[in-house]
Amino acid sequence: MRGIAYLLVAVVVLSGVVYIAHASGRSDEQAAPMFGIKIPPGYRDWKLISVAHEEGNLNDLRAVLGNDVAIKASREEKLPFPDGTIIARLAWSYVPSEENNKVFGRSQSFVAGAATNVQFMVKDSRKYAATGGWGFAQFKDGKPADEALLKTCFPCHEPVKARDFVFTHYAP
Amino acid sequence: MRGIAYLLVAVVVLSGVVYIAHASGRSDEQAAPMFGIKIPPGYRDWKLISVAHEEGNLNDLRAVLGNDVAIKASREEKLPFPDGTIIARLAWSYVPSEENNKVFGRSQSFVAGAATNVQFMVKDSRKYAATGGWGFAQFKDGKPADEALLKTCFPCHEPVKARDFVFTHYAP
Repeated sequence: MRGIAYLLVAVVVLSGVVYIAHASGRSDEQAAPMFGIKIPPGYRDWKLISVAHEEGNLNDLRAVLGNDVAIKASREEKLPFPDGTIIARLAWSYVPSEENNKVFGRSQSFVAGAATNVQFMVKDSRKYAATGGWGFAQFKDGKPADEALLKTCFPCHEPVKARDFVFTHYAP
Repeated sequence: MRGIAYLLVAVVVLSGVVYIAHASGRSDEQAAPMFGIKIPPGYRDWKLISVAHEEGNLNDLRAVLGNDVAIKASREEKLPFPDGTIIARLAWSYVPSEENNKVFGRSQSFVAGAATNVQFMVKDSRKYAATGGWGFAQFKDGKPADEALLKTCFPCHEPVKARDFVFTHYAP
């Protein structure tokens, strides 16, 4: 009996350790309000869909990555994107590269500076039926954007309804 | 004995088929002269190191991808890059997006157009000892660049010798 008691104590203590480890590792996993989307684990390892540059207030360089479902659909140019698609838009400040310009002998090179924010579109045609089947999220330094900002996502994507609300084309 | 003779004939015929299939499938795999580098299979699936924009004659948007060895070294900021590193630089023409600009209500959005060319840096400190341990390649529509062009690669990368001849920094 004493053996079983020790075992139970060990299980309880270990559960506590696992819980604490899980909780302390969650800083980057807070759910964005409204759509309730968390940062998808490993998204920085996803394959590239395309790149872009936005001038104006955004003034960034961006990369659009996709999980395997997104990449397959993008390459096959199949619309609508199937449930399970997740598209990640990473962006960094648009910074002239003195180092590169010195080599080129002219001011022509712009590179990725600090990360600005990361956005996700998650396809779930039932859960997000009210917004074209897409849930939207934005995180800055791991912190989710507020509801007011997330409410602006879908109206902005509506003009590209014919492309299932996705702006980015796959870059071959 | 007749059985063995048939077997030998079969082996010879099949070898021929395999050889022809191999030769006819090589159009995209032609080695670039000078460094003898072929297009690494599956490079379009590699993980993203960073993005950039070059103005001037290049006028492109670019993505720098890396094989697993390259990504690991980039993230750990370990120099020099180990043998086996391959870095791929993809580039597309820099195209204003009418579609995006309409949504933004101003001319600010630039996206990837047609692919221009793809370049590779392959680390092999013994094989390419004369050029800092790096072999260089460029392909346009699957065709390798000529020797004259490849001779310009290393001199251009020499100013960043302190970073093991690699311009691109990893974008977090």
